[in-house]
Amino acid sequence: MTMSLSAELWPDVQPDAARRLMLAGVESFAQRGYHATTTRDIATNAGMSPAALYVHFPSKAALLFAISRSGHEQALALVQNAAEQADTPMTALREIVERFVAWHARRHTVARVVQYELGALPEQEYRVVAELRRGIERIVHDIVVRGAEAGQFTVSDPMTAARAVLSLGVDVARWYTDRSRTSPAELGRQYGELALRMLGADPARAASPRN
Amino acid sequence: MTMSLSAELWPDVQPDAARRLMLAGVESFAQRGYHATTTRDIATNAGMSPAALYVHFPSKAALLFAISRSGHEQALALVQNAAEQADTPMTALREIVERFVAWHARRHTVARVVQYELGALPEQEYRVVAELRRGIERIVHDIVVRGAEAGQFTVSDPMTAARAVLSLGVDVARWYTDRSRTSPAELGRQYGELALRMLGADPARAASPRN
Repeated sequence: MTMSLSAELWPDVQPDAARRLMLAGVESFAQRGYHATTTRDIATNAGMSPAALYVHFPSKAALLFAISRSGHEQALALVQNAAEQADTPMTALREIVERFVAWHARRHTVARVVQYELGALPEQEYRVVAELRRGIERIVHDIVVRGAEAGQFTVSDPMTAARAVLSLGVDVARWYTDRSRTSPAELGRQYGELALRMLGADPARAASPRN
Repeated sequence: MTMSLSAELWPDVQPDAARRLMLAGVESFAQRGYHATTTRDIATNAGMSPAALYVHFPSKAALLFAISRSGHEQALALVQNAAEQADTPMTALREIVERFVAWHARRHTVARVVQYELGALPEQEYRVVAELRRGIERIVHDIVVRGAEAGQFTVSDPMTAARAVLSLGVDVARWYTDRSRTSPAELGRQYGELALRMLGADPARAASPRN
């Protein structure tokens, strides 16, 4: 169970022991916060010794960085793919929100660590992650600007609008649980409509390709 | 400086030592998380002895509860006042978002603890806070429903729409800093427009009374 979830979350990470440690880290950080978690807690949670943890990650900060970077890379990739596949700013924006929101709901425990433990990253590692975040914001900002130029969106401040669009998705990680009545995909669909409207677009004119 | 800020944040709390401890708690929890903070850290931060802390709060959890309950009561009161003072669902919704967003920006450190340390509250205390949260959600939900009935809003799922409106405000606490280029009031104004649009309303028809 744990092994297959960790493989699903981080297909690119090898060996399996490293993935198990990342999952144990996510669970511990989400439950008690980064600062209150020890490397011993994480190793125990993964069924390993503290020494075995250090074989894969030189420090607790290195483990947090691996989780945070991977989460941000996944979010950036899905935003990038959605932007590239769409043929208009409206469909691009809707696709991005649908996927970004669904990811934050489906991966809510990972996403919580990714979004709320940024302050615990060491300076250099923080800079790497901040650049990935700027990449996500830039794509959404540029789509908002292009949509406004094309007359599809009406916005007074593209930066504020782009951040509000992303906020809708990020905040899902805070409140979504496995007991939430709306599925990740359905929530994404609803938020896609809300986001388009927020930008002054008519959702009926940008039908979701998956519906 | 610290004394006047704590008095501004919690005008109803007496004596001043209790307010200073709440402010020290907010700062410590926001920086390192609830679980990694000791009562000794908080007392030291407030310039007091651990024994002096226990005079005012029987435990670290009691201090978190005081901060969380007070923050939720303030948020509920401002949402209630905005709802009561407005004469239409559109102006009510805009007023609520303007004040709720501005509060989360202006009080971002307090709001961060209030919004992100819910899981650390003991069960009984959590229930008290959860009831305050439901009160906020209920007011926004009812305004969305009344606005839809009055033909001012167009929404497919009022509960999802209400939560998305509140998400915009809550997430401000995550990213807003004292260095943010937009003032709390201006951010509130912009988000008020975005929220109205999200509900399918025309912001130009619900002019902000403060503009």
